[in-house]
Amino acid sequence: MQGNKKELMDRLKRVEGQIRGIQKMIEEDRYCIDVLYQVSASRAALKKLGMQMVRNHTRACVANAIRQEHGDEAIDELMQFLDKFVD
Amino acid sequence: MQGNKKELMDRLKRVEGQIRGIQKMIEEDRYCIDVLYQVSASRAALKKLGMQMVRNHTRACVANAIRQEHGDEAIDELMQFLDKFVD
Amino acid sequence: MQGNKKELMDRLKRVEGQIRGIQKMIEEDRYCIDVLYQVSASRAALKKLGMQMVRNHTRACVANAIRQEHGDEAIDELMQFLDKFVD
Amino acid sequence: MQGNKKELMDRLKRVEGQIRGIQKMIEEDRYCIDVLYQVSASRAALKKLGMQMVRNHTRACVANAIRQEHGDEAIDELMQFLDKFVD
Repeated sequence: MQGNKKELMDRLKRVEGQIRGIQKMIEEDRYCIDVLYQVSASRAALKKLGMQMVRNHTRACVANAIRQEHGDEAIDELMQFLDKFVD
Repeated sequence: MQGNKKELMDRLKRVEGQIRGIQKMIEEDRYCIDVLYQVSASRAALKKLGMQMVRNHTRACVANAIRQEHGDEAIDELMQFLDKFVD
Repeated sequence: MQGNKKELMDRLKRVEGQIRGIQKMIEEDRYCIDVLYQVSASRAALKKLGMQMVRNHTRACVANAIRQEHGDEAIDELMQFLDKFVD
Repeated sequence: MQGNKKELMDRLKRVEGQIRGIQKMIEEDRYCIDVLYQVSASRAALKKLGMQMVRNHTRACVANAIRQEHGDEAIDELMQFLDKFVD
């Protein structure tokens, strides 16, 4: 779990850097389409990070819930989130 | 399962009807934005249908795989699909 | 415009065929993940078709509106649609 | 343009704050689904910000290009971006 935590933190720090980079681009009046591609890249990085977390959550929490015969609630909770995230 | 199958078939027939409706709109030279909203509605219906199938699949196949201690493959297969579908 | 109309109709007929293919897969009880990839492919085809229509609409209707100095309404209408479609 | 620039900067600073908030949640071992909803909210904020920039860009740069009769290149450039962003 700790190794995984470190990986998520690293990814988040990278996204934070991207967001600061976008601010710099706007301050420097860079061409809007170039800025937009950076916005798109940050969104893609957050999606990848989110899917990584969904995978970990399913392998750990949802799988445990299923083994303890209360899987349906865990699956519904995850699906409700994915409905929002698939967006 | 059969009830579920019927529900999926009904949803798919409705999407098929939507697609035919869009063809009619194009033949009648309807305003592009109006047509586009119908395209968007069909995509939304397919997303809802897909999420319904993901939920059923997780509750049935993935849950079984987890109980039989080969859950990781089933979860990876599902995540690989979701990566594509979250789009 | 007619050539373009024909291309859109052909794309829509292909999507209609995909939707009927998915119904057949469900009737034959095919593996859910295989069916889901077909659902995903139909959504992708509708997105591509929609983006094609957005491009045509922008080149024709929006560009005309801009030339006639009432571009802002046309752009707002398009953006309102894209907000829904980027989804 | 400057007012608009300030608004974009404010939005970006808020997203940056959200990303730091997610890091804090992970350090505190908060429940994965709660963290995921924050990731989803950051993505939604970036989408909204991106769509705002697309609107500004269309109203300014694309409209100018159309008035100067080289609109098609500007529209194609925008569509190429949207194809990636509608994701």
